[in-house]
Amino acid sequence: MNFASDNAWGAHPAVLKALSDCNEGAVGSYGADPVTARAEAAIRDLLDAPQAVVRFVATGTAANALVCAQLSPPWGRVYCHDSAHIHRDECAAPEFFSNGAKLVPIPGDHGRIGPDALGQAIRAGATGSLNDGAGALVSITNATEWGTVYAPADVAALAGVARDAGLRLHMDGARFANAVAGLDCAPADLVRGVDALCLGGTKNGALAAEAAVFFDPALAQGFDYRRKQSGHVFSKQRYLAAQMLALMTGGLWLDLARHANAMAARLGQGLARSGAELLAPVQANEVFARIAPEAHAAARAQGAVYHLWQDVPPGPGEPVAIRLVTSWATRDEDVDRFLDLIG
Amino acid sequence: MNFASDNAWGAHPAVLKALSDCNEGAVGSYGADPVTARAEAAIRDLLDAPQAVVRFVATGTAANALVCAQLSPPWGRVYCHDSAHIHRDECAAPEFFSNGAKLVPIPGDHGRIGPDALGQAIRAGATGSLNDGAGALVSITNATEWGTVYAPADVAALAGVARDAGLRLHMDGARFANAVAGLDCAPADLVRGVDALCLGGTKNGALAAEAAVFFDPALAQGFDYRRKQSGHVFSKQRYLAAQMLALMTGGLWLDLARHANAMAARLGQGLARSGAELLAPVQANEVFARIAPEAHAAARAQGAVYHLWQDVPPGPGEPVAIRLVTSWATRDEDVDRFLDLIG
Amino acid sequence: MNFASDNAWGAHPAVLKALSDCNEGAVGSYGADPVTARAEAAIRDLLDAPQAVVRFVATGTAANALVCAQLSPPWGRVYCHDSAHIHRDECAAPEFFSNGAKLVPIPGDHGRIGPDALGQAIRAGATGSLNDGAGALVSITNATEWGTVYAPADVAALAGVARDAGLRLHMDGARFANAVAGLDCAPADLVRGVDALCLGGTKNGALAAEAAVFFDPALAQGFDYRRKQSGHVFSKQRYLAAQMLALMTGGLWLDLARHANAMAARLGQGLARSGAELLAPVQANEVFARIAPEAHAAARAQGAVYHLWQDVPPGPGEPVAIRLVTSWATRDEDVDRFLDLIG
Amino acid sequence: MNFASDNAWGAHPAVLKALSDCNEGAVGSYGADPVTARAEAAIRDLLDAPQAVVRFVATGTAANALVCAQLSPPWGRVYCHDSAHIHRDECAAPEFFSNGAKLVPIPGDHGRIGPDALGQAIRAGATGSLNDGAGALVSITNATEWGTVYAPADVAALAGVARDAGLRLHMDGARFANAVAGLDCAPADLVRGVDALCLGGTKNGALAAEAAVFFDPALAQGFDYRRKQSGHVFSKQRYLAAQMLALMTGGLWLDLARHANAMAARLGQGLARSGAELLAPVQANEVFARIAPEAHAAARAQGAVYHLWQDVPPGPGEPVAIRLVTSWATRDEDVDRFLDLIG
Repeated sequence: MNFASDNAWGAHPAVLKALSDCNEGAVGSYGADPVTARAEAAIRDLLDAPQAVVRFVATGTAANALVCAQLSPPWGRVYCHDSAHIHRDECAAPEFFSNGAKLVPIPGDHGRIGPDALGQAIRAGATGSLNDGAGALVSITNATEWGTVYAPADVAALAGVARDAGLRLHMDGARFANAVAGLDCAPADLVRGVDALCLGGTKNGALAAEAAVFFDPALAQGFDYRRKQSGHVFSKQRYLAAQMLALMTGGLWLDLARHANAMAARLGQGLARSGAELLAPVQANEVFARIAPEAHAAARAQGAVYHLWQDVPPGPGEPVAIRLVTSWATRDEDVDRFLDLIG
Repeated sequence: MNFASDNAWGAHPAVLKALSDCNEGAVGSYGADPVTARAEAAIRDLLDAPQAVVRFVATGTAANALVCAQLSPPWGRVYCHDSAHIHRDECAAPEFFSNGAKLVPIPGDHGRIGPDALGQAIRAGATGSLNDGAGALVSITNATEWGTVYAPADVAALAGVARDAGLRLHMDGARFANAVAGLDCAPADLVRGVDALCLGGTKNGALAAEAAVFFDPALAQGFDYRRKQSGHVFSKQRYLAAQMLALMTGGLWLDLARHANAMAARLGQGLARSGAELLAPVQANEVFARIAPEAHAAARAQGAVYHLWQDVPPGPGEPVAIRLVTSWATRDEDVDRFLDLIG
Repeated sequence: MNFASDNAWGAHPAVLKALSDCNEGAVGSYGADPVTARAEAAIRDLLDAPQAVVRFVATGTAANALVCAQLSPPWGRVYCHDSAHIHRDECAAPEFFSNGAKLVPIPGDHGRIGPDALGQAIRAGATGSLNDGAGALVSITNATEWGTVYAPADVAALAGVARDAGLRLHMDGARFANAVAGLDCAPADLVRGVDALCLGGTKNGALAAEAAVFFDPALAQGFDYRRKQSGHVFSKQRYLAAQMLALMTGGLWLDLARHANAMAARLGQGLARSGAELLAPVQANEVFARIAPEAHAAARAQGAVYHLWQDVPPGPGEPVAIRLVTSWATRDEDVDRFLDLIG
Repeated sequence: MNFASDNAWGAHPAVLKALSDCNEGAVGSYGADPVTARAEAAIRDLLDAPQAVVRFVATGTAANALVCAQLSPPWGRVYCHDSAHIHRDECAAPEFFSNGAKLVPIPGDHGRIGPDALGQAIRAGATGSLNDGAGALVSITNATEWGTVYAPADVAALAGVARDAGLRLHMDGARFANAVAGLDCAPADLVRGVDALCLGGTKNGALAAEAAVFFDPALAQGFDYRRKQSGHVFSKQRYLAAQMLALMTGGLWLDLARHANAMAARLGQGLARSGAELLAPVQANEVFARIAPEAHAAARAQGAVYHLWQDVPPGPGEPVAIRLVTSWATRDEDVDRFLDLIG
């Protein structure tokens, strides 16, 4: 019953097998190997982006921060939701990689920025004064940190606002697969207007693999140096690429995300049935709910693992806000057992 | 016949197996897992350093640059050999991570800095003027970029010079295993006086795994944040740790290095027999030699892969300086075939 | 009738004279001159801080950002008011100099942070997770960006909260003189518990001169290199120091601040009499008020210069929020003329 | 008899007077003042560069490092002479501002890089490997750190090499006036092919003023933010600009440089007559010579101030290498007295 995070679970067997399959012999280092070429092509195909530049790194923080630094100068303003992973959970990596960029948090229900709120924030910062730095980038997370999704039309609306203001659009897709699965849309439809996508593999079933995708090659200029200088180019890069290729093969990435989403839906429905308050719509692989303290105590006593979702611990007798994350490896029986415990 | 680099070859099967063996179930993320704890302990044992702080990253550039940034302020001077990987081959990663540190190259035969040359360089920089920055760190590579080694007494002598000047000592041990194998010494003896060791796993037979080791925990203060902020903390860290643990288990790391060194020795002896000039003593897993242009042409024609070792290509009829690197996976028959070709 | 900023006005004649007075002959460069020594001593005397390290730079942004970088690692959290100059008006200089520190804005009435709000913010960030970085510094501005002041007891209370949490305390004293004048307290009383003060000279009547003061010399370790590396060490430093020395001589700094404060008080009283709403207490040299649109139009038409104080321009017929800043050079007649216009 | 540096002397009276002359009244802050506009125009006129972007800062290190960061990415290689001020004397400011750029020193007689040496260095670094970073910038100093000059044809030759390799050309003109005076050429002729000039005012007779000049406005994009974020925008910028304007007015800058050069010439001729060995041609305002130890002792005993010009102090009885710098304020009698002492 581990719902702490989708990164608490291991790698899918097909991913592990891909590592063994590409292990034989000597190949070019630093990405000059055939697996890398095939994996990059697979992602371009997936996104229907034949011109895109695709580069692999091992962590989501690296992918996001490298892209932020690529698309924002040190004095840039980066607009994001106030719950954004890049703002809240990456130890100021975007600021470090960009050497100073300012993250500007924007409020919004359930982890989503609305186009009006985005436009207002951009206008407020566009004073023309040097004091304020220069608007550079909008970053959205899809699926969001609240387990909700932006649909293609939502992305397009935000992309329009960003473009009109002369800003770039980044999508943190650590859970992009879950968003696509939740929306049942074409991946390419979900990135229209997006300048750079960080496509997550790790939470989707890899050991450690993410892809940074630049849809316009001109925006990737110098990125290979940036990645190298920050220590994120693997010498034996075939192992990074093989993970992504395994996920892309036969639609595995989407199957795994669908399973995770289904597990979250089941959790959400069960919680609602039990009278718990859902704090956000369940649209991907995360569930946010407020449960009774007795239910929380019972679940923890039986070994359920999950994070509290509030800054200050609740007082005695108060409901407890929790976050439950499901993964490709979450089992029905764990979901059911958890629901039994808190029911 | 691939002698391009030890990172051109794959991972040892035991390392791959370790990934599968640790794959089951959910564990704590970001290093809070039992494999990480065991791997850190194994490295402390290996180095007879019970107090040491051990942290894993995926690339040697990350390990070196993070340690340089940890031990040098932005205005620090970092003394290293002029062929040092941190100076020549890491795309200015130390400068980037440290936000400005200055690498000061020191000449020396066959990749080795002598204590006198080190002392002289440090004194020349210690002007007391703000213009010159402040001496911070000495970095040595063992085995060196020229395939030679520093023996324990060599390290101790350099450590003494550094310590007397108030500087720290870093050892880039991307090929530490090859140095230990070449010297047939205790690992702990090779790091006396060293403040931080970057212990390489990748070239030794891992997919992508290195350890940063701080012998004095006080020097590691804040390092976990530094690693996180630069995107080098894996969420599923068990896979990094499992690689190192597999290498440490049953002395595999040393067996693999001994094999690589033996292959290099065989190459060196064969080259010498053939009349080629060896450019440096063969003490680890690299061979530097000058061979006849016909030999070079013949080897390349038969598919031998290796790097030239000079900035400007030789003129027609001139001997060709080459670098040959062997690995855990180099086969006797490849060595013999290569020697036949150039013989 | 220029109330745009205290830096819109020139330098006090005594400051200019000091430049001429120290101009003769050759002296040591980069601070090794007698004027610098005397000016540093004068500031140590003023603050009753015989051990303090005092260093001069030309701009407030440089002083603040250098101190933030000195007292926060790249992964540090810097707590400040959400209207803080370092957060809102310095183009992310603290992030740049520190190579990544995160500024965490705290709300509070009239530009002031309360100890409870500070404690709550620090606790919320002290999760122990690497994701959140590490609390490093509290920064307060005195006088604040809202023209209010922290009294010695207020500073002491915040210092206690910071100290209990293991954080350092920085005071942005761009208008420190105005705070001291407004409180009529001893300068030393206003910095008890403060680790570093940026003492402003420019707004006080200098051309361009600020002092960074570290009360504990241990905290200033390496600061001279930091200042040099960022280009903020003047070769002819006597001219920086002479400005500060001129201000310190004969209590000029306080006389000038008292005049500026008196002009602001007169403005505030006049505005209140006229029925304008004061948006904050007038405790230093700034006045924030809401005035009728006709008054605003009349003032502007007659050449009054000042900034609006709201993000979105008011609609027709709505009151206009304005900021008026007075300086050592503000004339009674300008104040009276302005009050006549809007009266 | 102070020959330590041209920054050991004060400011020319006309520069001080200009500060007083612009002191009256309130003007726009941060450069929005009439003096700044006039000073920028004067420098564009001087350089016959009507499109150029001109920006003022207070120190040469700031000017150089800001320009290096503007014209090199973090992974850029910056080629310069191995005695270059940016490499030897700025505490790694270019590395800090650019967040990692690598300075690549090139040898050359008397502080000058030759076009062949430059071409060779650029080719050696242009490996195409990520390991080596990317060639970005060539930086030359004129007059050089050895008191020699590049003539217009020399600059054009280096500019051609840089341009052919796709690199930018920066000129550190801390002593640009001395170069122009020494060459008796048009200023514009000396910057043909130069992308950015740092035009020194401080050593020429200002208190603290330098200009960064970008000949192609496209290269200055974002530079105002860069300058602001590093704390180098003065709020009362009129005082920076007034210094430069005073120097530009009536050809004062050139008169002052001519005087300094004449003093150096006189020193050089006297030294040569006395049998001292001149270590470099005297072409600007610096003299490098080897003098007898007795002469050195006598000069020092009589209060002559100058720097030794070697890393290791000479042994007893050995000649002493010294550097003598003259300035606008150097007096004939000081030169003559010094020559008498060592004669």
